[in-house]
Amino acid sequence: MTPARTFVALVHGPVWNRNHERIASAVTHLDLHDIARTARTYGLGGYLLCHPVAAQRELVARILAHWNETENLSAHRRREALRLVRLAPDLEAARATVAEACGEPPFVLATSAASRPGAVGFREVAGHVGARPLLLAFGTGWGMCDEVFDRVDATLESIDVGSGYNHLPVRVAVAIVLDRLLGGFER
Amino acid sequence: MTPARTFVALVHGPVWNRNHERIASAVTHLDLHDIARTARTYGLGGYLLCHPVAAQRELVARILAHWNETENLSAHRRREALRLVRLAPDLEAARATVAEACGEPPFVLATSAASRPGAVGFREVAGHVGARPLLLAFGTGWGMCDEVFDRVDATLESIDVGSGYNHLPVRVAVAIVLDRLLGGFER
Repeated sequence: MTPARTFVALVHGPVWNRNHERIASAVTHLDLHDIARTARTYGLGGYLLCHPVAAQRELVARILAHWNETENLSAHRRREALRLVRLAPDLEAARATVAEACGEPPFVLATSAASRPGAVGFREVAGHVGARPLLLAFGTGWGMCDEVFDRVDATLESIDVGSGYNHLPVRVAVAIVLDRLLGGFER
Repeated sequence: MTPARTFVALVHGPVWNRNHERIASAVTHLDLHDIARTARTYGLGGYLLCHPVAAQRELVARILAHWNETENLSAHRRREALRLVRLAPDLEAARATVAEACGEPPFVLATSAASRPGAVGFREVAGHVGARPLLLAFGTGWGMCDEVFDRVDATLESIDVGSGYNHLPVRVAVAIVLDRLLGGFER
């Protein structure tokens, strides 16, 4: 797999809230910075922040502009990570952005905290997807709505270490998935 | 390795600040929750929060008490993670706490974003430490001071995926290290 042709999407909507209602979740400063730093660490081509509400995308654009204009060592490191961020209204638009950047459409792979039927394994993805751009989609809130899963190319197996507890923060799940696919660590 | 005999310590002091001065870093709500959830996911025996300032430890104790007294589904999940948190003034006290919990002293393994001479590899730790309790120490701020490294049993190799950027948030580094050691994922 070529990291520069791998992208992450953070999907803010449509996602479920705790009452199983369709919502768009608020952008958090924290996920923005943490996922950007992780994406930069793993050499990704970009981090697509997908939000259906224009005002939320504008908020992110303002945050990015702030760090782009701030000059100190810490800002330099943040900027190097945040320059990977691209804004999109939804996952389909993110797919189009990646297709344009790579010259060919990506394989869109959803992730889920719950296991889903037909999910592909980490090893399979790590071993076979290299030839094509990859867009990994992560949901916020209580996970992406079914119609998002209906439109992806496949779903990745969930992170399951057998403890019976699967409430990892999305910023943490992104890191674990990227390390398994791109970390180059052999056990 | 037995997860229940593995512990993480988050060391708030002594650590370096950006000007290479010895400080104690402030506790963050975020690291507390994220690392507790990750520790619970990986089935750890505990999460030792090491802070030399009593008022900061009391602040954490109050946060833990709050979640212990709140009744709803989200609070239940948080509580299940936060009950792993133990407070200690420093890493030596954390070592003693783990020794008491396990009936034998742990092997104390420091982590570092920068590579350090003599560091042991992930595979070696995953394969050989199982017989003994393990305490993994992570630094906040710009990393643990040298005197902390001088007193540990060994240092783990750094997470290095070859991108030249190693500014992962500590809550993310904890997850990657635990997944490599305990995730049971074979590439």
